[in-house]
Amino acid sequence: MTTGCIVAPLGFQAGSTYCGIKIAKDSLDLGIIFSAYPSTGAALFTTNQIYAAPVKLSRKIIQKGMGCVRAFVINSGNANACTGEQGYKDAAEMVSTAAACLKISEDELLIASTGIIGRPLPMEKITAGIQTAVNSLGNTQAHGDAMARAIMTTDTKQKSVAIRIKINGKEVSVGGIAKGAGMIAPNLATMLCFLTTDVSMPAELLSECLRNSAESSFNRITIDGHMSTNDTIAIIANGASGVTIAEKNNDLRTFQQGLDYVTSTLAKAIVMDGEGATKFVQIDVIGARSRNEATRIARSIADSPLVKTALNGEDPNWGRIVSAAGYAGVELDESKTTLYINDILIFAKGMPAQCDLNTLSASMKNKDIMIRLELGLGNYRDTVWTCDLSHEYVTINAEYHT
Amino acid sequence: MTTGCIVAPLGFQAGSTYCGIKIAKDSLDLGIIFSAYPSTGAALFTTNQIYAAPVKLSRKIIQKGMGCVRAFVINSGNANACTGEQGYKDAAEMVSTAAACLKISEDELLIASTGIIGRPLPMEKITAGIQTAVNSLGNTQAHGDAMARAIMTTDTKQKSVAIRIKINGKEVSVGGIAKGAGMIAPNLATMLCFLTTDVSMPAELLSECLRNSAESSFNRITIDGHMSTNDTIAIIANGASGVTIAEKNNDLRTFQQGLDYVTSTLAKAIVMDGEGATKFVQIDVIGARSRNEATRIARSIADSPLVKTALNGEDPNWGRIVSAAGYAGVELDESKTTLYINDILIFAKGMPAQCDLNTLSASMKNKDIMIRLELGLGNYRDTVWTCDLSHEYVTINAEYHT
Repeated sequence: MTTGCIVAPLGFQAGSTYCGIKIAKDSLDLGIIFSAYPSTGAALFTTNQIYAAPVKLSRKIIQKGMGCVRAFVINSGNANACTGEQGYKDAAEMVSTAAACLKISEDELLIASTGIIGRPLPMEKITAGIQTAVNSLGNTQAHGDAMARAIMTTDTKQKSVAIRIKINGKEVSVGGIAKGAGMIAPNLATMLCFLTTDVSMPAELLSECLRNSAESSFNRITIDGHMSTNDTIAIIANGASGVTIAEKNNDLRTFQQGLDYVTSTLAKAIVMDGEGATKFVQIDVIGARSRNEATRIARSIADSPLVKTALNGEDPNWGRIVSAAGYAGVELDESKTTLYINDILIFAKGMPAQCDLNTLSASMKNKDIMIRLELGLGNYRDTVWTCDLSHEYVTINAEYHT
Repeated sequence: MTTGCIVAPLGFQAGSTYCGIKIAKDSLDLGIIFSAYPSTGAALFTTNQIYAAPVKLSRKIIQKGMGCVRAFVINSGNANACTGEQGYKDAAEMVSTAAACLKISEDELLIASTGIIGRPLPMEKITAGIQTAVNSLGNTQAHGDAMARAIMTTDTKQKSVAIRIKINGKEVSVGGIAKGAGMIAPNLATMLCFLTTDVSMPAELLSECLRNSAESSFNRITIDGHMSTNDTIAIIANGASGVTIAEKNNDLRTFQQGLDYVTSTLAKAIVMDGEGATKFVQIDVIGARSRNEATRIARSIADSPLVKTALNGEDPNWGRIVSAAGYAGVELDESKTTLYINDILIFAKGMPAQCDLNTLSASMKNKDIMIRLELGLGNYRDTVWTCDLSHEYVTINAEYHT
């Protein structure tokens, strides 16, 4: 997935380097995304009560800076999480060094870290790395690709996408990179996503767009239900395209659609790169009393180890799916419940349906699996994307040693 | 675990048979527990919104019969779940056949089924099996052991225990059997527990004791977080010991302790027999603002696939434990959070602790693992028991085919 990159929108540069945080010398481990113009920004952070120093600091910065953001500085290989006061001081030093090198205010940049938990950041390496990354800033596809790799940990593929859309006759772009393979993989993961656009937009409106987009993308995926201490999604809008969106109008809707495309593409890429994943599974819950109830049921199915192992075994085990729906804490009516797997009706209004089991079994060999549960209770629906649970997942996570 | 059995209390008999529901001919698949005297009973059922016909019917019976229960009739090999109206008729037929054979009222017996989902009960076999089981009723250890085996599905070990306690100078007994290896294992599991006692007790008081006991035993275990459609816990008290407990006094407390011993022994036996389990893990959360918050955090840790795979890999991965606590939806203060694994301090008030890693690593090879998380927020605590997530779990559940 390298159609377009984080520096596709006008006025953005990226620079990255190997500064020695990771052990493997050919791995990039520090990257900077920089807007040549004053810009607005918005960010969402993990809701985990145990959150890392860079999350704590970036939350403060975005409040203090009133939504003016011009740069992201990210390191991989060390999460700077569970590191106490020293961790917070190190994060602050990362900000001041980067601000000095980029010649911007300390209130105009956000930082993020991903990697091992509970170890101090190697600050000498970080300081040198920031200087090198700033010196390497550029806006080619190669710069964008390197930036996408610089934030990877257990990811097996870089995740980067951009889209060009027309607003009011003018071309604007949205670009994005993401990383993540377990919601948190041991001490070496986290979900990160950085977005850029050359639209100009007030920070509040941008923040609303980002929240909307995250709701329908990153908040709809689950690999193992384990939330990271470092999750961060952030966007910068620099106005370099000459297009300004200042109110809730058709232009904003067009922009939202473009942003949604970028975030859902990246979110799905994370699921497809899920630790040990062999299947990409879409779970649609239809006919719920509210979206929230649809979400809870879809998540309950997606997070069930029994459903995930059945998918891994390519078995259309509808009993596991229906019973996982049943314990989601939502009132159901079994006699109205209907289930399709890969568009084949298998459970109809509370009773097993007569279906062509050969066709169904054959369809389970597909990489993409569709599960559609109809509740018959109302008009709301939701979709969650997940992957299967494989021997490889156990191997990756049981054989990893701290 | 065969110290004592379900017919240890006076005035109880058990009978079991192979009637042809299971494929393996040497497996028992139908059993009956019967009290020679009029008795009171109490039962708890799955809270899954998709619940099986026997659960639906037994719920009605216990309400209608005003807590008079003299018998349990249980089949394994077929759960009679997701079977629609026919399933309910079959359950009713199971009740009327058993009541006629046992010469008791249809309001005096509870039924339970466990096994494959979505297939009609083979009623001819069940009817014949009930007659055979009634003819084989007896009160020896062999009768009790056979009864424990008759309710097994994917279980590898029978789970049976009894305790003798003194109340008011007289000996009374509590016996129990249980089955379960996954909370629900595919189409072949469920958690069932049947208890007997020769104490006499009003149904309401008995029901309260059972709820208390379940709270501190079966409601404190999790193997894979997947709740069954058929879970049932039920007790009969027949008064054969001559001891009556009719109010909340010291005798009741003594009885409650005995019942708690039986239920927690059986609950732990289920975890130890968990699908693919190689570790028995106790998670203590201490210093919470409420018991509910302690429970939520303990469950969040217990159900994290990342924690479970680390335990399987015998790795003391404290980052996964602390971050799982962080997403339980409970407000935490990292700087007050402290973690012990196998009584070794590894995370102290928000910072990694200096500890003897060799000793810690060696202790991870134990079959029993203790995790103690101290929150420093209040005076409440809770304990949850779970097991690890192994390759064997994936094999059992991915290779099972419907």
